Amino acid sequence: MPEYKAPLRDMRFLIDNVFDFHGHYAALGATDASPDMVSAILEEGAKFCENVLAPLNRSGDEEGCHFDQGVVTTPKGFKEAFAQYVQGGWHGVAADPAYGGQGLPHSLGLVLSEMIGSSNTSWGMYPGLTHGAMSAIHAHGTDEQKATYLSKLTAGEWTGTMCLTEAHCGTDLGLIKTRALPQADGSYAVTGSKIFISAGEHDMSANIIHLVLAKLPDAPAGTKGISLFIVPKFHADSGERNAVHCGSIEHKMGIKASATCVLNFDGAKGFLIGEANKGLNCMFTMMNHARLGTGMQGLCNGEASFQGAIKYANDRLQMRSLTGAKAPEKAADPIIVHPDVRRMLLTMKAFNEGNRALTYFTAQLLDTAHLSNDPGQRQEAEDLLAFLTPICKAFMTETGLEVTNHGMQVFGGHGYIREWGMEQLVRDCRIAPIYEGTNGIQALDLLGRKVLGSQGKLLRGFTRIVHTFCATNAEHPQLSAYVAQLNRLNQQWGELTLSVGTAAMKNPDEVGAAAMDYLMYSGYIILAYLWLRMAIAAQAQDDAAFAKAKLATCEFYFKRLLPRTATHRAAVEAGSECLMSLPGAAFAF
Amino acid sequence: MPEYKAPLRDMRFLIDNVFDFHGHYAALGATDASPDMVSAILEEGAKFCENVLAPLNRSGDEEGCHFDQGVVTTPKGFKEAFAQYVQGGWHGVAADPAYGGQGLPHSLGLVLSEMIGSSNTSWGMYPGLTHGAMSAIHAHGTDEQKATYLSKLTAGEWTGTMCLTEAHCGTDLGLIKTRALPQADGSYAVTGSKIFISAGEHDMSANIIHLVLAKLPDAPAGTKGISLFIVPKFHADSGERNAVHCGSIEHKMGIKASATCVLNFDGAKGFLIGEANKGLNCMFTMMNHARLGTGMQGLCNGEASFQGAIKYANDRLQMRSLTGAKAPEKAADPIIVHPDVRRMLLTMKAFNEGNRALTYFTAQLLDTAHLSNDPGQRQEAEDLLAFLTPICKAFMTETGLEVTNHGMQVFGGHGYIREWGMEQLVRDCRIAPIYEGTNGIQALDLLGRKVLGSQGKLLRGFTRIVHTFCATNAEHPQLSAYVAQLNRLNQQWGELTLSVGTAAMKNPDEVGAAAMDYLMYSGYIILAYLWLRMAIAAQAQDDAAFAKAKLATCEFYFKRLLPRTATHRAAVEAGSECLMSLPGAAFAF
Repeated sequence: MPEYKAPLRDMRFLIDNVFDFHGHYAALGATDASPDMVSAILEEGAKFCENVLAPLNRSGDEEGCHFDQGVVTTPKGFKEAFAQYVQGGWHGVAADPAYGGQGLPHSLGLVLSEMIGSSNTSWGMYPGLTHGAMSAIHAHGTDEQKATYLSKLTAGEWTGTMCLTEAHCGTDLGLIKTRALPQADGSYAVTGSKIFISAGEHDMSANIIHLVLAKLPDAPAGTKGISLFIVPKFHADSGERNAVHCGSIEHKMGIKASATCVLNFDGAKGFLIGEANKGLNCMFTMMNHARLGTGMQGLCNGEASFQGAIKYANDRLQMRSLTGAKAPEKAADPIIVHPDVRRMLLTMKAFNEGNRALTYFTAQLLDTAHLSNDPGQRQEAEDLLAFLTPICKAFMTETGLEVTNHGMQVFGGHGYIREWGMEQLVRDCRIAPIYEGTNGIQALDLLGRKVLGSQGKLLRGFTRIVHTFCATNAEHPQLSAYVAQLNRLNQQWGELTLSVGTAAMKNPDEVGAAAMDYLMYSGYIILAYLWLRMAIAAQAQDDAAFAKAKLATCEFYFKRLLPRTATHRAAVEAGSECLMSLPGAAFAF
Repeated sequence: MPEYKAPLRDMRFLIDNVFDFHGHYAALGATDASPDMVSAILEEGAKFCENVLAPLNRSGDEEGCHFDQGVVTTPKGFKEAFAQYVQGGWHGVAADPAYGGQGLPHSLGLVLSEMIGSSNTSWGMYPGLTHGAMSAIHAHGTDEQKATYLSKLTAGEWTGTMCLTEAHCGTDLGLIKTRALPQADGSYAVTGSKIFISAGEHDMSANIIHLVLAKLPDAPAGTKGISLFIVPKFHADSGERNAVHCGSIEHKMGIKASATCVLNFDGAKGFLIGEANKGLNCMFTMMNHARLGTGMQGLCNGEASFQGAIKYANDRLQMRSLTGAKAPEKAADPIIVHPDVRRMLLTMKAFNEGNRALTYFTAQLLDTAHLSNDPGQRQEAEDLLAFLTPICKAFMTETGLEVTNHGMQVFGGHGYIREWGMEQLVRDCRIAPIYEGTNGIQALDLLGRKVLGSQGKLLRGFTRIVHTFCATNAEHPQLSAYVAQLNRLNQQWGELTLSVGTAAMKNPDEVGAAAMDYLMYSGYIILAYLWLRMAIAAQAQDDAAFAKAKLATCEFYFKRLLPRTATHRAAVEAGSECLMSLPGAAFAF
């Protein structure tokens, strides 16, 4: 397994020099998030991830989870690491102090999440799902529900899950069959079977609090008839075992140390959370956060893969440089001298650092949306979040998967061997474009719901930022050509959107036909903007080597990756006809 | 696991209507390859693959190979399937009748190979490697060596391997350390350790014949000092066990039922084959065939994935079509109504059928190169093969990997679960861009050795064919616009090549910087040519549904996939500077 080292230099650069987290925290009144606190989280968090989580990553993959008559056992060391994590206070970093959390901004929670996900994606699922459940209860629970569950969840004594999917429905939650029957005592009897429940059953915590989507007897059809219920494994008051049991765990391509459970609810006692029939809305309020977290998986697996690949490329001796031996004293040159190996490494580097910048940019918006006292500023942040979230989820996981595949390829045959750990990163990353809403669904959400649904307003909220940036930096001594290139693309983006919107008014299939390419096209432009911000900020640094690396990677991005927008644009412009003309039965003969 | 059905309709279309295999066989005097024989191979081969090999694919992946003190046991059923395959006469279809083969053209062997690889890639490695060893012995062995080994190998009583890689060298074979010491009896004592040896040890055959690259004591340094040796597991004359043993088998991402062995040679008795110090040349003579076979893995895994995905997309009900319900009597529409699902399915279909056409086109050239009595025609075929082989290997495996990933994505979360078999196809396919020369190496071979090394002659051999085709079909009633598009790209291809060649004269790194994108760019143009040939041939068919499907897929290819050439061209034109400027030590901080 590539040894993980938290990329603190790059993280600090973004926090201090690109996005000025400290100034932003001060402006928002988040005074607890002092520079010292940020440093402590970075340094101590890095140690925990490097020394405790990373060493369990490959063994966790090899061992997987065990299932025996409803009991799930996580791989060796996972339970102990969770105890250490909870004891270190990491679990409550961004949680509400009223329930024992440290109340730090979400952006700091995400900085920590990157390190956790990079060192051990599977392990990170357990606290990750718990944070999801905590958000839902915090946003929609009664005071009593909050008091009952949040302290235990924040303390890590209990963990949580999100139970949405059923065998016959994933994307289409309107089809769920799980039913909740009202009981005389005000509770509900929940009956049904849920699948793909991450952390649905395990041995890390004393209790598991399930948040379950189900339908009331009189519920309207479809998504408007879904309600959300709290269904604890053990009841908070009596400690009694509830009628929810794990039927099996899935055997998967990757994230094998994350228990993916079938959960059977047999009249389990549950409690309505939020309004009846508004369950999906309750889910949506925390979707931004969860989808950004899933998008980060592309960054996390990509970063781990890059760290393995760069070390290997500097160590592995194979062939001579085409321009003459670079290490004549050795049997061959290190493979990093070869342009095609560099192409792969720079692609990895450009996506990882670009995706990290996108994560931090978005995390800062989360802070504003949560903490600002100015309603206008909050709304602006919410709008940008609505726009960026599907892009973060899909673009970062698509490119993250590409990155992990490059990392494997750099290793040649050794990349295919489990021992080296590079192929695990590909397998672990492969779920990210699928879960938490497939990337195809993200693309529909972006183009249909967000961009066209707002008559372009949400897009303009972002292109305006880019426009201002380009105007400000049009005369930049080193980067003006790239600024001009970004400015042209930024205009083209609006034009392309208008043309899709016009076509979609006549034919709704145009949205679906364009969506995925439109999302990727958008992602490349957003990363171009962020790469320029990084390159410019780096030039102002004293560290010449670091500044040169940022500049070189920015140039690589503009010359070798950004041209992909041309292909995505052509695909968008191709329209729906060439997708829809063939009858479904005529695809195969 | 998706049930495999050989795509006989498409295969027959290529054989009969696009490439006229029968006419070609007749012209080459390959009269044994009659239409009846071709039909028999298609139909009976399909039955064997569908009924015997396909059912062992997932169980083989789950069970994997077993290693115990040098003994390797293949998964349940593999040995029996091999016996059945040999008994059915399949192993010798394209082998020399002088040694018990049926002497049919290579193209028919490849038609069979596609069905084998699609139904069970891992299993196909065992006969595949044996065919490689047979080719080497046939081309370079003495009459005595041929007599000793070829009949047993053709009969499948023995199997073969190719032993090239060592722990410290894969691509850079000049670094190998395995030594061969001449013995008094004319044999050699071979000592060294080889890794990644597919089918290096197993329980399918009574004996294993290893072809081993090693260095003589007085050998020149580097690749000019490598010789090839036959090292049998059991000696052909005495039956005595030789000093070659399997030290371990690798644990891999995929092709788990294929035994990938560490082989230790401890003074094993070997026999020189071919000239001393010409071992690499011996390997190269069969490289075209082996690399085409590896390229086909992209097609094979892609075809299996498509079969699973198309069935799922027609069965799975989820959401309503954006243009109104298509199956109002059901709870939701089948997902094939959604444009983005169609985008994935059509991408799969377009690559698979395009790659199949490329395989058959190339296979026909192999026949010409082997069987033609006209030296000029043979040379022309050899030149085209030299040009197309690296493209077949790399383009077909890159796109095949994309196809298998789409297939998984169509399944949503279920695609990530092992039970469905879709993720196995991704894992199995992932080795294909790596082994048999990484795709990066194929790209260097194409651009550096083949295209620029021939001063563009090998490229012009192909662009001339395309040019003639475009001239002939410029007025095609339905397809003239696409013919014109292909014609423009064909010209641009030459111009792009010239510009890279000019740059490379000043700076050899320009070749490495451009190579991978140049190869992909070339592949897309070649597939465009083949798609037009298919679309035109299909219009002349009586089968209107089939003709419409080919036309629709051709249109999809031109509108949604061929535009990728723009991105690859931009990357080629970006040059080497943005890859080479960053010092190797400055990639990570």
